[in-house]
Amino acid sequence: MAAMPYLKPIEYDAASDEVRAVFDDIMAVRKVEAVNNFWKSLANDPATLRRTWGNIKEIMAPGALDPVTKELIYIAVSVTNGCEYCIGSHTASAAGKGMTPEMFAEMMAVAGMANETNRLAAGYRVELDEAFR
Amino acid sequence: MAAMPYLKPIEYDAASDEVRAVFDDIMAVRKVEAVNNFWKSLANDPATLRRTWGNIKEIMAPGALDPVTKELIYIAVSVTNGCEYCIGSHTASAAGKGMTPEMFAEMMAVAGMANETNRLAAGYRVELDEAFR
Amino acid sequence: MAAMPYLKPIEYDAASDEVRAVFDDIMAVRKVEAVNNFWKSLANDPATLRRTWGNIKEIMAPGALDPVTKELIYIAVSVTNGCEYCIGSHTASAAGKGMTPEMFAEMMAVAGMANETNRLAAGYRVELDEAFR
Amino acid sequence: MAAMPYLKPIEYDAASDEVRAVFDDIMAVRKVEAVNNFWKSLANDPATLRRTWGNIKEIMAPGALDPVTKELIYIAVSVTNGCEYCIGSHTASAAGKGMTPEMFAEMMAVAGMANETNRLAAGYRVELDEAFR
Amino acid sequence: MAAMPYLKPIEYDAASDEVRAVFDDIMAVRKVEAVNNFWKSLANDPATLRRTWGNIKEIMAPGALDPVTKELIYIAVSVTNGCEYCIGSHTASAAGKGMTPEMFAEMMAVAGMANETNRLAAGYRVELDEAFR
Amino acid sequence: MAAMPYLKPIEYDAASDEVRAVFDDIMAVRKVEAVNNFWKSLANDPATLRRTWGNIKEIMAPGALDPVTKELIYIAVSVTNGCEYCIGSHTASAAGKGMTPEMFAEMMAVAGMANETNRLAAGYRVELDEAFR
Repeated sequence: MAAMPYLKPIEYDAASDEVRAVFDDIMAVRKVEAVNNFWKSLANDPATLRRTWGNIKEIMAPGALDPVTKELIYIAVSVTNGCEYCIGSHTASAAGKGMTPEMFAEMMAVAGMANETNRLAAGYRVELDEAFR
Repeated sequence: MAAMPYLKPIEYDAASDEVRAVFDDIMAVRKVEAVNNFWKSLANDPATLRRTWGNIKEIMAPGALDPVTKELIYIAVSVTNGCEYCIGSHTASAAGKGMTPEMFAEMMAVAGMANETNRLAAGYRVELDEAFR
Repeated sequence: MAAMPYLKPIEYDAASDEVRAVFDDIMAVRKVEAVNNFWKSLANDPATLRRTWGNIKEIMAPGALDPVTKELIYIAVSVTNGCEYCIGSHTASAAGKGMTPEMFAEMMAVAGMANETNRLAAGYRVELDEAFR
Repeated sequence: MAAMPYLKPIEYDAASDEVRAVFDDIMAVRKVEAVNNFWKSLANDPATLRRTWGNIKEIMAPGALDPVTKELIYIAVSVTNGCEYCIGSHTASAAGKGMTPEMFAEMMAVAGMANETNRLAAGYRVELDEAFR
Repeated sequence: MAAMPYLKPIEYDAASDEVRAVFDDIMAVRKVEAVNNFWKSLANDPATLRRTWGNIKEIMAPGALDPVTKELIYIAVSVTNGCEYCIGSHTASAAGKGMTPEMFAEMMAVAGMANETNRLAAGYRVELDEAFR
Repeated sequence: MAAMPYLKPIEYDAASDEVRAVFDDIMAVRKVEAVNNFWKSLANDPATLRRTWGNIKEIMAPGALDPVTKELIYIAVSVTNGCEYCIGSHTASAAGKGMTPEMFAEMMAVAGMANETNRLAAGYRVELDEAFR
């Protein structure tokens, strides 16, 4: 059939200088000794790798919301989109930042319920209350 | 054409005793003087009204997560599903519970980013790292 | 700005012969005197109009499932996708085919619940039972 | 890395009394001798386990719609959300309740078509007909 | 449990004449010597097999858009829906039609960004500009 | 009820210097005399405004794909997500860059079909062909 059915992840040793610079920054900021497969796959497009890491570094930094709350939001969205990779990787990183099983369970309950009521509101064609406009 | 293109919201005065009991509980728990259109529409099916309110009352109560964090998760899911009603009503109730514009903005940044990376992970067919299994 | 921000619906009187032939068949099969806006909009692309009507006519005809059951499935999907137009038009046509408010309410309860459990299964990363493979 | 990358399913023998009570009820109502992995995973949060089973038991019981029709709606939603677990488990339970391959095939044809027309309606920005409001 | 948890793919040798006719046409149009698993699975419902192939053959043919552009659009939608099978099969067929890794990477960047901005527009409840109506 | 049910769009005259700098760059790059409501709404969070514009400017620039192809991909994703604002604004900007009605119609046909086949692949649980791994 064809040439590019699958873009292989790029390991550090095989990476260009541009890619290595991003990998180095990820490892420094996260204090880890290797990058996840997500970054190795994105390395096939150095521009997207650099841009995505820059965005995540800025967005996930502590601010008005603490890091665990941000991870919980991240997982809730990933659950809603059914992204197996993102659920797996962010559940691990959330746990590493202090998410307890109880926090995970309550986030899941809210996310599940919101997915249900979102559809109830759509199907019953609920009109937005004057107070919420 | 047909009989039931649209299920009209049911006002308190026109509601059955079963529906009024739920409306009364919503107003008591939330310390408000009227229920949102969402509940008035669900009142067309008293069983779903009762069940949905019972679930939400239990799930949104404070626990391992505080009420504002739960609202932020609710909005992030509603944004991902594009539910206009739920975004409008829960943004208002989150603000009422103490969500600041800065918290809203950071939640939106995380939710937007997660929607992007969820798709990047899918398209690049990233394999789950051994450590996340 | 630009030429085509919006494709206007095409009315019968302004339609080409090719489009009119499809409109005529829709009206004949459905025993109605005008076509919905959906068909008037699709008429901007006669090939898609013809193909879509041909598919719907074949798929929605009675078979192993009766017409009301097919409409209920159609609405459940449209609710899950948040398609306001499709919810509105198919709720009306379902009612015209015999869907009662009780049937609508039960379909909505199932669709809402499925949307919730779909996400619970994803977030808890439930492994498929041997028996279901 | 972290403590909780994955919540292990909880088997009957290792379950608390609270969880066992729900497992017992599931097995009694469904006349089966073991519960699916879905319930074993939810058992990590007994409140969600209890609430979800209570809701499903009520919603999936026969009413204005028969059990097979409810399962077909469940599968159509799960297909739209791409939930592999839910498709697998509910296809099996639907077959157990009398769904024939012909019924499955027609449900899939309707669900596929609805997913297509939902997007056509969105892209062509079809205005809701006066008659459907 | 039940009879039909899984519909097995139907191989050419075991196929009915009706199914074989479609398989033959797929192989002739695509100049390949076997059909993908997608078609073997759809063969469980000959009507859906015939209809789906007829639609795809018509839609994916060159027209105002060239075949690679059509494949890129197909992949972008499949990525947004998280359809692993469709991403895999259409990435391969796109590569076979001339999609380069650079084209794939740029499509992914656009698709990822659109998924993010779609949600930002929803959450910030952006009102449609007069000029776009 | 509460303080922040709705974040009002920020007009140029009321904007901070930081926001004006982004607005100025958008107008310069796009050669327009005002920014869309999307940017005025995002201006409520200057960091997200700056980051989002920076990403879009980089991603939508011509590269291996021409600007119209990128807009078609953008619209196909927005259609799949049902984002009314994004469909409206990007249909207009695509038309401004040279998208013809025929190109729009073919993109819509592909996007509609992909949404259908994505779900058929999920429901029939099609196994990925060895050749696509």
